[in-house]
Amino acid sequence: MIAALSELQSRNNQQLDVWLSQLPHQDNALIQAMKYGLLLGGKRARPFLVYAVGTMLGQSLEDLDTPASAIECIHAYSLIHDDLPAMDDDELRRGQPTCHIKFDEATAILTGDALQTLAFTILADGSLAPNAESQRIKMVSELAKASGAQGMCVGQSLDLSAEDKLVSLAQLEEIHRNKTGALILCAVRLGALAAGEKGIQVLPALERYAKAIGLAFQVQDDILDVIGDTETLGKPQGSDQALHKSTYPALLGLEGAQQKAGLLLEEALRALNEVPYDTTLLQSFAQYVIERKS
Amino acid sequence: MIAALSELQSRNNQQLDVWLSQLPHQDNALIQAMKYGLLLGGKRARPFLVYAVGTMLGQSLEDLDTPASAIECIHAYSLIHDDLPAMDDDELRRGQPTCHIKFDEATAILTGDALQTLAFTILADGSLAPNAESQRIKMVSELAKASGAQGMCVGQSLDLSAEDKLVSLAQLEEIHRNKTGALILCAVRLGALAAGEKGIQVLPALERYAKAIGLAFQVQDDILDVIGDTETLGKPQGSDQALHKSTYPALLGLEGAQQKAGLLLEEALRALNEVPYDTTLLQSFAQYVIERKS
Repeated sequence: MIAALSELQSRNNQQLDVWLSQLPHQDNALIQAMKYGLLLGGKRARPFLVYAVGTMLGQSLEDLDTPASAIECIHAYSLIHDDLPAMDDDELRRGQPTCHIKFDEATAILTGDALQTLAFTILADGSLAPNAESQRIKMVSELAKASGAQGMCVGQSLDLSAEDKLVSLAQLEEIHRNKTGALILCAVRLGALAAGEKGIQVLPALERYAKAIGLAFQVQDDILDVIGDTETLGKPQGSDQALHKSTYPALLGLEGAQQKAGLLLEEALRALNEVPYDTTLLQSFAQYVIERKS
Repeated sequence: MIAALSELQSRNNQQLDVWLSQLPHQDNALIQAMKYGLLLGGKRARPFLVYAVGTMLGQSLEDLDTPASAIECIHAYSLIHDDLPAMDDDELRRGQPTCHIKFDEATAILTGDALQTLAFTILADGSLAPNAESQRIKMVSELAKASGAQGMCVGQSLDLSAEDKLVSLAQLEEIHRNKTGALILCAVRLGALAAGEKGIQVLPALERYAKAIGLAFQVQDDILDVIGDTETLGKPQGSDQALHKSTYPALLGLEGAQQKAGLLLEEALRALNEVPYDTTLLQSFAQYVIERKS
């Protein structure tokens, strides 16, 4: 599993590097900061899901580079903006100074902005397989829906307004369904879209898988914030508690949260049972989501 | 002229209101702030250019609503982020408190983010004339190119790094060609794209027009920052000087800057001479750009 993930990490890095190297004003702080925010580390979970779903359905890696690169740009921009002083005020990310610490706040804001735009440039201009070409505009629609006021951005807003408040389990799930879940679901949908008709047939099962691992991802993040250590995490342990954020361990206890993660894994694997293709990679990824240490 | 502009302002506001009202979580601060940032005031110069170019080439207003709405979302997002404390730190915009003053900084960052995303949702999902449907992905490509690291964002970054420095006229033009010019050029290109083949034929002349008025727009902005009054401007007079920004009046003197604006107007009108359609609206707009008081 980790082998496949790290192989695709390298592939995704190379792709993104090519996009960034084509930009004018290479010596400008904006471009430097885009490279810093996009290329230094990161699990590449979302590109991985695009590749894993797409190749399972018979697409080549080349055919999947475009949506995989686009979705990582959205993820990278969201991290840069989430780390800003006015948001989560984090100084460490992936074991490195966050973008506004390494550069400055204005550059970090612009860098996030430009990485979001780059995602749509990539979807509009990047190569796609001939059978996926007709899906290009649908990919733009999906990625925008998952990223903005119907997905990630509203999730972050709900999360911010829940700080210092006691929220219910249902409210917590609504936050994370938007904040992290929407983009993970989108990764799976983009991989399926790239495969055309074949992808549409298995989409309902893949969506159940994506929703379960999306939530499991967050539950495990919350668990790691309690039991992880700063060095392995690459970001300060205990930062959720410091911000008085509602988390799964806070609502369910640590053991309850771990049980929840286990149940979500089972749900994800059950959904894959209905997919008549080789789901090995997707199974291992689900396992990895709740076993990872960072 | 002002009549046509204010008519299209209302049309654009209505369109944007419909898009915003469809979003979930209407009571969330994010959605409230998106409405505040997008619907309260603004000249709507970019949508106007989309409509003016498109209708000149025979498209109906309905056929142009989608690109007109999308480009205004990009413009609105850029204003919200430019006003942030880490950027230009402005408290007044269009005579109202800026977004981070009215709401808070985190909400303003997210609001800009989500408005950028909305632009691409609109381009992907909004209605287009049948003859423009094939141009949809091209519109995404154009808007992204004009907005991000190849346009507006890098312009803002160049502008920030020029603060407190003496820049040459060539450097100042490079800043503004990206910061404001790229999106104005894009508005004209989107209007032409919506008209298909007809638009492509007149594009070279229209681009010369757009480049001239884009620069004239900035020259006049700089002039107004010196001679305007805060009430008419809706933002503090003299803020460029306060930030030690290089401006046309600073480089050319006030009279030199006014001459420059006049020359750019002539250039814009000369370009329109080559366009074999009724260019009355575009002519009046060029005039308006250098005569406006806010």
